[in-house]
Amino acid sequence: MERVPVLKIGEILLVSIQIDMEDQVALQLQEDLAERIVATGVRGVIIDISALDIVDSFVGRTLATIASVSRVLDAETVVVGMRPAVAITLVELGLSLPGIRTALNVDLGIAMLARQDEDIDLLGDEDDTDQVAEPTP
Amino acid sequence: MERVPVLKIGEILLVSIQIDMEDQVALQLQEDLAERIVATGVRGVIIDISALDIVDSFVGRTLATIASVSRVLDAETVVVGMRPAVAITLVELGLSLPGIRTALNVDLGIAMLARQDEDIDLLGDEDDTDQVAEPTP
Repeated sequence: MERVPVLKIGEILLVSIQIDMEDQVALQLQEDLAERIVATGVRGVIIDISALDIVDSFVGRTLATIASVSRVLDAETVVVGMRPAVAITLVELGLSLPGIRTALNVDLGIAMLARQDEDIDLLGDEDDTDQVAEPTP
Repeated sequence: MERVPVLKIGEILLVSIQIDMEDQVALQLQEDLAERIVATGVRGVIIDISALDIVDSFVGRTLATIASVSRVLDAETVVVGMRPAVAITLVELGLSLPGIRTALNVDLGIAMLARQDEDIDLLGDEDDTDQVAEPTP
C-alpha cells in the first residue's frame, strides 16, 4: 500500500502529500502522524499540498481531522503550498477548511509555528479566544 | 503530469520522492531542482526516498544526475531515508550509488550539510580527502 512519509525536521514534522488521498492512505497517515507526534514530542506539523491539483471535501475533512488529532496531542498544524486554483475551487465548493491554519510556503509555516510556540511559552497557555482565562493560582 | 514538489526549508531544498520515477517525472524534477537552486541560492539539497520500495538503476542514475547538476551549481546533495531492504537490493544489483552521499534521516542530512558548509566557510575550500588540513592560526 502506498504510504505518505512523515519527515522530522528539527522541531517539526513535515508531510508532503503527493498521492491520491484514498481512504486507507488517509487513515494510515493520521495514524503515522499521531504516533510520530507522541514519539518525537514535536509541537508543530506542516502539511504541504503544493502537489495537489484539487482538494475535495474528503481531503479537506482529512486535513481537519489531522489538525484536530494533532491539537489534542499538543501540536499545531499548518497547511502550506496551496495553489491559487485550489483555493478558488475550495471556496466555490463552499469549503473553507475550518480549524485549519494555512501559510504560503514551508518557511512561512515554520515561522508561524515558531511565533505561536513563543506565545505559549510566554503566556503559559494557548490563546485561541478573545477572552483570556487566567490560570487560577 | 505528476510532478515532485521542491520545498525550500531555511537554507536547504527538500524533495520527498513518493511517485514512480518515470522518464518525464525524473527530467522535470531535475529541471525544477536546478531552477530552484539558482533562484534561491541554497547550498544543500536533501532527497528523501523513504517512500520508495525499490531503487532500480534508473532511479539510481537519476539521483546521481541530480547530485552532479547540483554540485555544478554549488550545492551538495544528500539522499536520506533509504530503507534497509532497498540498501540490500541495491548492493545485490551491483549498484553502489557512486557520487551520492547518504544519511539516515532528514535531521542527520541537514547536520551533514551544515558541517560541510562550515568547512567551506572555515577553509575556503571543500575538504573531501583523508588528509585534514588544519586552518593556520
